[in-house]
Amino acid sequence: MISKNMKALVEQSAAISALFTEGKRMRQILGDENVFDFGIGNPNVKAPLSVNKTAIEILENMDSLAIHSYTDGAGIPSVRSAIAESLNRRFQEKYTQGNIVMTTGAAGGLNVIMKVLLDEGDEVLTFAPYFGEYDAYVANAGGKLIAIEPNIPTFLPNPKKLEETITSKTKAIIINNPNNPTGVVYGEEILQEVADVLRKKEKELGTSIYLISDEPYRELVFDGVTVPYIPKIYENTIVAYSFSKSLSLPGDRIGYLTIPSTVADFQDVVYGAGVANRVLGFVNAPALQQLVVAKCCDEKSDVAFYDKNREILYNALTSYGYECAKPQGAFYLFIKALEDDDVAFVNKAKEFGILMTPSSGFRCNGYARIAYCVARDTIEASLPSFEKLAQAYHK
Amino acid sequence: MISKNMKALVEQSAAISALFTEGKRMRQILGDENVFDFGIGNPNVKAPLSVNKTAIEILENMDSLAIHSYTDGAGIPSVRSAIAESLNRRFQEKYTQGNIVMTTGAAGGLNVIMKVLLDEGDEVLTFAPYFGEYDAYVANAGGKLIAIEPNIPTFLPNPKKLEETITSKTKAIIINNPNNPTGVVYGEEILQEVADVLRKKEKELGTSIYLISDEPYRELVFDGVTVPYIPKIYENTIVAYSFSKSLSLPGDRIGYLTIPSTVADFQDVVYGAGVANRVLGFVNAPALQQLVVAKCCDEKSDVAFYDKNREILYNALTSYGYECAKPQGAFYLFIKALEDDDVAFVNKAKEFGILMTPSSGFRCNGYARIAYCVARDTIEASLPSFEKLAQAYHK
Repeated sequence: MISKNMKALVEQSAAISALFTEGKRMRQILGDENVFDFGIGNPNVKAPLSVNKTAIEILENMDSLAIHSYTDGAGIPSVRSAIAESLNRRFQEKYTQGNIVMTTGAAGGLNVIMKVLLDEGDEVLTFAPYFGEYDAYVANAGGKLIAIEPNIPTFLPNPKKLEETITSKTKAIIINNPNNPTGVVYGEEILQEVADVLRKKEKELGTSIYLISDEPYRELVFDGVTVPYIPKIYENTIVAYSFSKSLSLPGDRIGYLTIPSTVADFQDVVYGAGVANRVLGFVNAPALQQLVVAKCCDEKSDVAFYDKNREILYNALTSYGYECAKPQGAFYLFIKALEDDDVAFVNKAKEFGILMTPSSGFRCNGYARIAYCVARDTIEASLPSFEKLAQAYHK
Repeated sequence: MISKNMKALVEQSAAISALFTEGKRMRQILGDENVFDFGIGNPNVKAPLSVNKTAIEILENMDSLAIHSYTDGAGIPSVRSAIAESLNRRFQEKYTQGNIVMTTGAAGGLNVIMKVLLDEGDEVLTFAPYFGEYDAYVANAGGKLIAIEPNIPTFLPNPKKLEETITSKTKAIIINNPNNPTGVVYGEEILQEVADVLRKKEKELGTSIYLISDEPYRELVFDGVTVPYIPKIYENTIVAYSFSKSLSLPGDRIGYLTIPSTVADFQDVVYGAGVANRVLGFVNAPALQQLVVAKCCDEKSDVAFYDKNREILYNALTSYGYECAKPQGAFYLFIKALEDDDVAFVNKAKEFGILMTPSSGFRCNGYARIAYCVARDTIEASLPSFEKLAQAYHK
């Protein structure tokens, strides 16, 4: 028999799969061209050409043992240096390889850092709505994720609520900037307020509170917005980064942790992250992919494509009467459901061929997430269906 | 502050690192040519040429999105089918893709299966000496690893001791065949005895006991030995496989779980393994590597090279008076230390430029592991030092 926890996860997951099976069934009934799948955040913009070119060059020219051998738990030293230098150029930092730990994507990095930091029963806070996997990542390391209720309609962190929720058991907070599912970008001002609360509570409680910033969408921002570099705002920040979105390499599982020298118990955290990579079974981030991103880390995929998708969809949907904060990052629109129950709303949308994710999966009721990382044709062809869906509620 | 568990792991790991720092220091004092490093199991035989060739073909010809996108948690369906068909050819099975879950190496696979099976406090048994990381893999999922004492001098499983150690909390046993660190291959007869014990106890206790067979060294066998295909011996067997050794791809992190349809709660286990890949942060086994091994899974690296290393080292060491069961698999010799304390013995060996791993790291006292996956020159040049080390004890 499988474990009780896993049984629950399997059932939860089966419900999600049912949604996709439903998608397949819908395609059969309505025809492929009448089904608009906005369900998953799988980038549909190809990786920059230099990525495959670099991989081929490495495979053709480097010594095979140097490509395929185990690497240090923390990653290949020259790769860690290359990433550090890239961050130094971009954010005027003074990192060395000792500040970078290569990870199996941001998901791997988050699991690693939770394993490093959490004792049984420690609490990690986050702001709803949030990426639902955080629950598992924290629980895997014996901790407990505590969500701070959604701050509607801005979906920015609420510093006051944060202050009320921190206890002596609070080991870390996770933020996701730009945010999945809302597409909102947290700006400098609100992050300063968050930092002030954390420092105040650290002093009051005599603890260290780490800010874990999950930033796979860092490069996906629009309207000239820049994502604040949080280690400059709060000294106890660890950044989990992934090339899944910026280089469209989600299947490759490659990312890194940035651990500034200012974080509490810096040396133990860095060393522990390498050890955690090993004991959690990642062993090392995939070696070939480490070598590739070292050379391609300053590039990014075609953000303008997502921007155009966003513009078309946002303008059309708001003109049909949907409520939605205009997202400035990631590739998600977070629209208010046209009835209280977001699952009922998402089910209703299926009748019109539209697949979205109900917001309750992100621990926030009454909304739906639209992942607009899809073909332009899909965006354009879906608009009449979104209009009919709105009309179905307003007739 | 990092967690208490991690603090202990970091200290343990620092001790191992000290050994490598020691190696560097030794090179400085004795000169590179006088240091013989048998410490780590990092293959030194290159991957078959077809591996890089296949990777390049994929990168040149396949659609970039198909190479780099997220895959199903359980892996790419066509890859799972290719692996199933390869196993069917080799072991006369009737697997389909539904029996295969692609994993981030065997280390990833073992963590996945522990997450699927273990409730808090469940016990997993193994036979000492064993790969020390099993402790962490079981503990990560809330279980407890219980080691059955070494069966000296054969290092085969002891079915009687196994029977005495199984309780109603025993969820699984892990075996590693061929074995790290001993190089011993468990044959059909002893495995039948193990299976009989497991069946008897399952019946007696009304439980299911899974046999997890960790087989990264399956292809590395000598003297015409074959490794029994354990699912044919015990119906409740799950095999964790890795291409780290057979294709010399340890840094690539690619392997798979074979979950025969005969295992208890088969569907839940397979489905759970895909979910576990996701929630543990592996998400999916690296996609490019999945595509590569689907085409190269019938190949293997140059086993004859390891065989020759083994012959030279085994013959020389036994002629100098070292005691050692002749290994028939993997790339390890497990020699009896020339004094009771294996750490003291390994330290003594350093004076002669020899780096080995003390057996206590494998939860067995009084031996040392020699990883002979090194250059032929290193093997040959090390022999006089091994002779002098023996003489130092017998003078």
